[in-house]
Amino acid sequence: MLKIEKPTLLLDEQKVKRNISRMAEKANRCGVRLRPHFKTHQSAIIGEWFRAQGVTDITVSSVDMALYFAQHGWDDITIAFPVNWLEIDKINHLAGTIRLNLLVESVETVQFLTAHLQHPTSFWLKVDTGYGRTGIPWTNQEQFAEVAEAVTAASQLTLMGLLTHAGHAYGPITKDAAAQVYHETVFRLQAVRESLPYAELLISLGDTPTTTLVDELTAIDEIRPGNFVFYDYMQAYNGVCSVDDIAIALACPVVARHPERQELVIYGGAVHLSKEHLTLPDGRLHFGAIALPTDTGWSTPVPHSFVHRLSQEHGLIYADSTFIDQVRIGDLLLVLPIHSCLTANLRQSYLTLDGQTIPMAGIL
Amino acid sequence: MLKIEKPTLLLDEQKVKRNISRMAEKANRCGVRLRPHFKTHQSAIIGEWFRAQGVTDITVSSVDMALYFAQHGWDDITIAFPVNWLEIDKINHLAGTIRLNLLVESVETVQFLTAHLQHPTSFWLKVDTGYGRTGIPWTNQEQFAEVAEAVTAASQLTLMGLLTHAGHAYGPITKDAAAQVYHETVFRLQAVRESLPYAELLISLGDTPTTTLVDELTAIDEIRPGNFVFYDYMQAYNGVCSVDDIAIALACPVVARHPERQELVIYGGAVHLSKEHLTLPDGRLHFGAIALPTDTGWSTPVPHSFVHRLSQEHGLIYADSTFIDQVRIGDLLLVLPIHSCLTANLRQSYLTLDGQTIPMAGIL
Repeated sequence: MLKIEKPTLLLDEQKVKRNISRMAEKANRCGVRLRPHFKTHQSAIIGEWFRAQGVTDITVSSVDMALYFAQHGWDDITIAFPVNWLEIDKINHLAGTIRLNLLVESVETVQFLTAHLQHPTSFWLKVDTGYGRTGIPWTNQEQFAEVAEAVTAASQLTLMGLLTHAGHAYGPITKDAAAQVYHETVFRLQAVRESLPYAELLISLGDTPTTTLVDELTAIDEIRPGNFVFYDYMQAYNGVCSVDDIAIALACPVVARHPERQELVIYGGAVHLSKEHLTLPDGRLHFGAIALPTDTGWSTPVPHSFVHRLSQEHGLIYADSTFIDQVRIGDLLLVLPIHSCLTANLRQSYLTLDGQTIPMAGIL
Repeated sequence: MLKIEKPTLLLDEQKVKRNISRMAEKANRCGVRLRPHFKTHQSAIIGEWFRAQGVTDITVSSVDMALYFAQHGWDDITIAFPVNWLEIDKINHLAGTIRLNLLVESVETVQFLTAHLQHPTSFWLKVDTGYGRTGIPWTNQEQFAEVAEAVTAASQLTLMGLLTHAGHAYGPITKDAAAQVYHETVFRLQAVRESLPYAELLISLGDTPTTTLVDELTAIDEIRPGNFVFYDYMQAYNGVCSVDDIAIALACPVVARHPERQELVIYGGAVHLSKEHLTLPDGRLHFGAIALPTDTGWSTPVPHSFVHRLSQEHGLIYADSTFIDQVRIGDLLLVLPIHSCLTANLRQSYLTLDGQTIPMAGIL
């Protein structure tokens, strides 16, 4: 058994590799490029597990993440975040080193880049297909035309296509509903493409729910899911994956028992799990499901048991009396995180089930 | 002006020192020991600012934090967290090096420590005075008697007194309501003390709202507030401090503008701020107030403007049209965090207004 003294993020390498190969096989079968988002795992070693499945191009969400993966041999990187002008020096370094793909949604940013970029760079127009976070609303033909024209007018800037994140697919979802979001998203991207006077604009779409649930990824060129590498309890709760697909779990020591109120206290709080939560139908908050350590990893979730309250270092688990009777102070419980991206980012390393430490980028 | 390229946690040294000296003066005037909680700042340099105000004893929330501050010259440390049996080797190292104070609430843990502790150690009984997180409920005289007896029966264990965290004081609160929580908490601790057959049990109380708002800290021996070193927007919103007391702010680049829906997008997301939020009376979520950079730090909060949505790296600010018209892509906005402890923990360093980097412990 692993020697664990404090909150430690366990990683089931077989599950991670299975999640990667499933997505890679689907992309192959559908003839779309898999450009996975590496913001979830942020690890060069896990990156190599993708490379082994034929992945050559990746997505990241910050300039620093792009620099980290460029240093680890990735030479075609999309930064799927609006260009941060204040990092232009680092962006220029990247553009001179690798094939760099940036997102634009405003003429101001294209003008800034036209004036300051020193190397050829590829661009995607960021389309808001309904999520409402950022990007040009898909109905705003005028703005697409202006931004696209500004990109094509600059000699060093190449317009690649249209890119979106269907973030509104993150919620309880069925296979049919996912297909509906997918086809609606593709329809909206096609409508934007048809309004523009450029041949060969590519379409890139990136989210874990639709790329997992939709069997036939048609009419697009590229997918950029990220979360699927680990999935998490939110994705299982929403119907996107099974709990068996969840590939990371936070091992937490039990430090106090309160059987009189059906609670256990673990060393594992907001600085370990993040405050991301589900709200259950009865209004209670759910910060993670509970599993038990086994010889080969961890069990299926313990029924009726979950982290219902977090402070900086404390986690409070609600559990039924039968379960509480089995647990002793000093035991380890495993928490299946609600949002694996945020939990992994807080821990900054993984421990595999055979005891190997996998470092992360360490970007703060 | 400071050169800032990405989300950076600014620290106003004058405000921090003012917050520290106010609390130190109150403790002195009231004749109580100030044993500040260092989990908020987690920095040896900021620790020295406390030492300059006469502080000699501190509180932390993990064994690793105790090791860090012990290495930086602190020799009387309370770990205000239930004892984690799995870290007994590090606990023994600390107990042999400094004056170590631990919290207990169960006979099992006292028995474990009696069997495994190799050096004299002081103990506080953890009392739940109404917060309901952990500790022995203040009405459970039987359990206090059992645990206290187990401590006093062991030759290396010294029983210091009763310790509580009035976490239920964290919410909108007036000076009068804070006084009521304070006196109720003290009454409950006194009731526990009177039920026990030991002379000279001390009383320790730790939370920022009551220790800030109550002028006369009577009938207790020690206070352990932590958050007050920086305060945060939650404390200002709750009426505990003024916004001018907030001593840290996250500087974030503006990366996109959406005037048509009164929104700005900043580079500053859940991995920078944490997902801690307020829920406004109209149901909207509030992840941080917005201020502007000034020559001497930052402005008062911009009215009607706040971070209302966060993803991993994106922050969405809701703002009125007048304000949006003044802001350009590439500008820096400052976010006054909702919960300074979690934001500081995510950043792991501070930048003072005169450009000095202050490192944190780096405990993950």
